[in-house]
Amino acid sequence: MAELSVRSVLVTGANRGIGLGFVQHFLRMPKPPQWIFAGCRDPKGQRAKVRLCSDLPCVGSAEVSDPASIKAAAAKVGEHLGGSGLNLLINNAAILKVRTLDAETLEDMSEVYTTNTIGPLLMAQAFLPLLKKAAQGSPSSGLSCSKAAIVNISSNGGSISSLYAWEIIQSTSYRCSKAALNMLSKCQSLAYKEHGILCVALHPGWVQTDMGNSPGQVPPTTVDESVQGMLKVLSTLSEKETGAFLDWEGKVIPW
Amino acid sequence: MAELSVRSVLVTGANRGIGLGFVQHFLRMPKPPQWIFAGCRDPKGQRAKVRLCSDLPCVGSAEVSDPASIKAAAAKVGEHLGGSGLNLLINNAAILKVRTLDAETLEDMSEVYTTNTIGPLLMAQAFLPLLKKAAQGSPSSGLSCSKAAIVNISSNGGSISSLYAWEIIQSTSYRCSKAALNMLSKCQSLAYKEHGILCVALHPGWVQTDMGNSPGQVPPTTVDESVQGMLKVLSTLSEKETGAFLDWEGKVIPW
Ligand SMILES: NC(=O)c1ccc[n+]([C@@H]2O[C@H](COP(=O)([O-])OP(=O)(O)OC[C@H]3O[C@@H](n4cnc5c(N)ncnc54)[C@H](OP(=O)(O)O)[C@@H]3O)[C@@H](O)[C@H]2O)c1
Ligand SMILES: NC(=O)c1ccc[n+]([C@@H]2O[C@H](COP(=O)([O-])OP(=O)(O)OC[C@H]3O[C@@H](n4cnc5c(N)ncnc54)[C@H](OP(=O)(O)O)[C@@H]3O)[C@@H](O)[C@H]2O)c1
Repeated sequence: MAELSVRSVLVTGANRGIGLGFVQHFLRMPKPPQWIFAGCRDPKGQRAKVRLCSDLPCVGSAEVSDPASIKAAAAKVGEHLGGSGLNLLINNAAILKVRTLDAETLEDMSEVYTTNTIGPLLMAQAFLPLLKKAAQGSPSSGLSCSKAAIVNISSNGGSISSLYAWEIIQSTSYRCSKAALNMLSKCQSLAYKEHGILCVALHPGWVQTDMGNSPGQVPPTTVDESVQGMLKVLSTLSEKETGAFLDWEGKVIPW
Repeated sequence: MAELSVRSVLVTGANRGIGLGFVQHFLRMPKPPQWIFAGCRDPKGQRAKVRLCSDLPCVGSAEVSDPASIKAAAAKVGEHLGGSGLNLLINNAAILKVRTLDAETLEDMSEVYTTNTIGPLLMAQAFLPLLKKAAQGSPSSGLSCSKAAIVNISSNGGSISSLYAWEIIQSTSYRCSKAALNMLSKCQSLAYKEHGILCVALHPGWVQTDMGNSPGQVPPTTVDESVQGMLKVLSTLSEKETGAFLDWEGKVIPW
């Protein structure tokens, strides 16, 4: 199995949870990326678990759902990278509202969709020129995450056919946003294949984070295990898997 | 095959296209429903093909995405129905924006999702008491569209696995909204089964309407054929099919 080897990566929602785990794993690699961009909308915010920004080029104040701040972030990243491109965009930031179907509102449905689905779309649009540049600069002909890739962190909760754990948590707004994110990933895979960019939707497992923890239940997977698993999966992907929906152990999840 | 036989039905987007076709077919039935509610946001609007409102109880000015107008419409329908319930809610109203993936915007993504996905959710919430009442008032034990049902008009464009006709029309905003609508239908089917309400997502075919017509190409299916097909499909559904995604000829569409 080839090691994942990227020169540059950007992770959204990198101040805590799985996003932070990605950044820490990249830093610990034998050959760490030259550029790790930690996307945080409020790097000094109360819930930030680590002051990443003192060490890393931080794309601070990037609300994933605010077109202007995303464009500003892309410009800043472009400056740091000089002439080179961005290999890996990990759309990780998301929100979950725990509601029954009857209690969903217009406002919650909108906010969750804007953050979880429109955000990743806008991020990919803004960083597309840098992703294309990375693909063009690569000697390899096929698709791979070491060359250029968009990784959308989805959820098995977005699997329409399985409706995983419905009895425990309905959260229709979240499920709809992740089903739509899966559709977006599939659309991106078709649109960006010709540019040499791999696109994939990943389910990280049920993970011990602010989002994953629920009263009286400890999720079975640590952030470390989840991120290590996902990085291993990413290292194995080729053009055969672009557009797929996989979990952190590499298993295909049905739409 | 049992005939579809309902006492009351509400169709959104009933001033033109497939919604109007539904109303016309219901009117022409040997045993037409006692109540046909034609949901139109602007019954006297320029694009309205028929002045339905002179003959039918019209739920005028019901923007499917405006909670207040939806609640007002539900109250009005409740008054008309007196003590009886609503058998059939057909969430048909929707919009399509023809865009390439690169040209999608926050505004379009939001507007399409609000109309095509959040609208049906809010409609079902508001009319749930009337649907429950219809189910309770029915002597039959299983689920059926003659008893109580939510029918969400979806699209094969929302099938993530097939990404139908991507080469001809990308429209990611529409595809995401319909994939999310399919998820909503599945959620509704699980939540409302215990109340005796059947839920289904239907693809009407590629149909000759303002939405279906595209420059230089005539859709293969007329509104009449599509609606007749869908009504036939609806008449055959039972608890086995609640939560399914079917086309106007009854074929299962993959998520
Ligand atoms: N944990 C699980 O069990 C689980 C299961 C399935 C899928 N997932 C997915 O995994 C991903 C990471 O989840 P997590 O468990 O690490 O969640 P988390 O601990 O709640 O962290 C969420 C991250 O997203 C950021 N974020 C939220 N809204 C944002 C916005 N509008 N703009 C910028 N950043 C925003 C948060 O930043 P702030 O600190 O500023 O709020 C935070 O960094 C998500 O996509 C989630 O849906 C998680
Ligand atoms: N035609 C096809 O080939 C095709 C294929 C697949 C799926 N579908 C689906 O079939 C359904 C009907 O489509 P159609 O072809 O009949 O479309 P259409 O001819 O464009 O009619 C759309 C209807 O929706 C109404 N509408 C739109 N936005 C609304 C809102 N916010 N509030 C209330 N009403 C609203 C319109 O009312 P106004 O007149 O006031 O705008 C109109 O009555 C849609 O769900 C569509 O996605 C159609």
